[in-house]
Amino acid sequence: MGYKSRDNRVFAVWCVVWSHIISISMATQGQVITCKAAVAWEPNKPLTIEDVQVAPPQPGEVRVQILYTALCHTDAYTWGGKDPEGLFPCILGHEAAGIVESVGEGVTNVQPGDHVIPCYQAECGECKTCKSGKTNLCGKVRSATGVGVMLNDGKSRFSINGKPIYHFMGTSTFSQYTVVHDVSVAKIDPKAPLEKVCLLGCGVSTGLGAVWNTAKVEPGSIVAIFGLGTVGLAVAEGAKTAGASRVIGIDIDSKKFDIAKNFGVTEFINPKEHDKPIQQVIIDCTDGGVDYSFECIGNVSVMRAALECCHKGWGTSVIVGVAASGQEISTRPFQLVSGRVWKGTAFGGFKSRSQVPWLVDKYLKKEIKVDEYITHTLTLSEINKAFDLLHEGGCLRCVLATQE
Amino acid sequence: MGYKSRDNRVFAVWCVVWSHIISISMATQGQVITCKAAVAWEPNKPLTIEDVQVAPPQPGEVRVQILYTALCHTDAYTWGGKDPEGLFPCILGHEAAGIVESVGEGVTNVQPGDHVIPCYQAECGECKTCKSGKTNLCGKVRSATGVGVMLNDGKSRFSINGKPIYHFMGTSTFSQYTVVHDVSVAKIDPKAPLEKVCLLGCGVSTGLGAVWNTAKVEPGSIVAIFGLGTVGLAVAEGAKTAGASRVIGIDIDSKKFDIAKNFGVTEFINPKEHDKPIQQVIIDCTDGGVDYSFECIGNVSVMRAALECCHKGWGTSVIVGVAASGQEISTRPFQLVSGRVWKGTAFGGFKSRSQVPWLVDKYLKKEIKVDEYITHTLTLSEINKAFDLLHEGGCLRCVLATQE
Repeated sequence: MGYKSRDNRVFAVWCVVWSHIISISMATQGQVITCKAAVAWEPNKPLTIEDVQVAPPQPGEVRVQILYTALCHTDAYTWGGKDPEGLFPCILGHEAAGIVESVGEGVTNVQPGDHVIPCYQAECGECKTCKSGKTNLCGKVRSATGVGVMLNDGKSRFSINGKPIYHFMGTSTFSQYTVVHDVSVAKIDPKAPLEKVCLLGCGVSTGLGAVWNTAKVEPGSIVAIFGLGTVGLAVAEGAKTAGASRVIGIDIDSKKFDIAKNFGVTEFINPKEHDKPIQQVIIDCTDGGVDYSFECIGNVSVMRAALECCHKGWGTSVIVGVAASGQEISTRPFQLVSGRVWKGTAFGGFKSRSQVPWLVDKYLKKEIKVDEYITHTLTLSEINKAFDLLHEGGCLRCVLATQE
Repeated sequence: MGYKSRDNRVFAVWCVVWSHIISISMATQGQVITCKAAVAWEPNKPLTIEDVQVAPPQPGEVRVQILYTALCHTDAYTWGGKDPEGLFPCILGHEAAGIVESVGEGVTNVQPGDHVIPCYQAECGECKTCKSGKTNLCGKVRSATGVGVMLNDGKSRFSINGKPIYHFMGTSTFSQYTVVHDVSVAKIDPKAPLEKVCLLGCGVSTGLGAVWNTAKVEPGSIVAIFGLGTVGLAVAEGAKTAGASRVIGIDIDSKKFDIAKNFGVTEFINPKEHDKPIQQVIIDCTDGGVDYSFECIGNVSVMRAALECCHKGWGTSVIVGVAASGQEISTRPFQLVSGRVWKGTAFGGFKSRSQVPWLVDKYLKKEIKVDEYITHTLTLSEINKAFDLLHEGGCLRCVLATQE
């Protein structure tokens, strides 16, 4: 009953938003749109809200009105100057949701008014990697998104008074409007609340997919999770739904344990409270090591510990976190010769355009959590405060409303 | 017709050997046997042939008359002082075949007269790892074999005038008689020529299993093999039988290519003939990298190259070679995050007691090569010459007859 009445409410809101969008869309189609965006002019310097010109979509492109965007650590990573591919000035942001404003020539997968989640990991369905059936790492637009431009003409659709501003991860969602490739946008059920499901554009999906797609955790498994931020907690939830018997959360902030319990973590270890290396602590309390481990921090020393706490013979460690540029992982080869497996995951192995809508549906059916990760809500103009929050222990996800 | 007449000849030889063995067995059962063995007194010092006392098998143990033993690089590795577990004086050797002379109390899986291959990788069928169904790494006797003794009393069965000589890898096959744990001996078809199938005790099985069990190479795959010794060539044969479309052999000795062709290598790359890093050379000639790579040398730099020449999204690299103690592998985590998988294998993932007999049967059915790896035959007393040969390019396997 409660669910039905919420459904009606959502539907009413949707109708209003949709008619509003269609009218905007008709007025702006083919035109340059000037809107607000948070621009990163150089590494580590506070973002500034600017009036940005957003060019119309070219063939194979989609212009999206971003309604909500969250912040993710990869945004902070690039903003902090740690990303060797980072280009400035740029518009960051890659975990968002919005509504298609207009589409370029030849675009058939979405149309104006569609509710969408931009996908930094594209899915064209036609390239060698898409066709392989073995990976989600579509390569179609990578040559352009890797250098902050669009594939069609090798240029940016963002500018300020004629000066180009680089795209970021093919998404650039810290803007009221953005332009993405058609292979980088997933059409979702319009009943889904965009202020929530924006999180499925990165962190939550990555954590769930690391468990379901990359590790393929089986019922009864013992799982270790290093780092209990949004991604780590999504790993915990994924492990719980996969039937893991023990989910060990490892974090240097013991305050995280209470919330982690709600996501499926059954035990907690703070490495600071032990003299022994953390891998040994875990091996000792698991009769030889865990079946699966996940590194959700981006620290190469922790990546080693995550591998080495796995059980010999079969333990599999998945790198989920993004390490700083130039850093390397290492271990003794005997760790692998004796049966451990070292893997990694990007966007949790999900094929973005095919599977993000499926994740949204799972959320609508209450099969996965999303709301619970949102600890803060702010507006786009408060984005620097949001970055500060991201580095505080108490913040999981901060969602910004862009249409303030 | 040729095969049948050979069969009869083998049977005749077998009858003679068997009756001889039974008579010896009855005479020696329960007694200390004094026999010849090659003793390694200290690292890098030539082995010496000694009269060694071999105690009768205790409960759960089997005394085996070794008829043929091959040399493997792991013997040379320990003899060279590179193995941190290496204990001296010891009797090396782990790739051999022989006939059971007597068994200790409670041994039911073999009996005197059985033809056997000693297995450095045990298989008890009862421990956590055996029961897991996920690995061949039985742990039952590891605590004893790792320190050169037998599990029952923590002592060696070898001595010279009362001074104990350590066991090695639970096999110590450079001796006319050895004592092994019952979980470390595979009973094989007595029709198999022991002077050939001794090779299935390590190198050939390891290479085949790395492909079939650990990597699970599929038809059509592109495979790269680093190092074209016995293990690398067995990997090539395994890849060929698995239906690989291209098998790229990489070695710094171009002379190896001719023989490698016979084992299934279709292309050859000598890194010395290229200025670019070998991983880039391979990526360039395979449209982005190989599906599977195998490091069969034991060089940590080559292990990195083997990983990095894999195709993003799915390429899997298997470490087969044994690196020197203390050395570490390293790479950028992005290599894994972008979908490559790093694994290793021990004894090719074969469950020894269950599957070595199956490999012997495959050899008897001419489904796998063995004879082709044997480039030299000598006697036990010529073992130092055999070690010299092992380091020469032209030697794959040297088989020593022990009952000279």
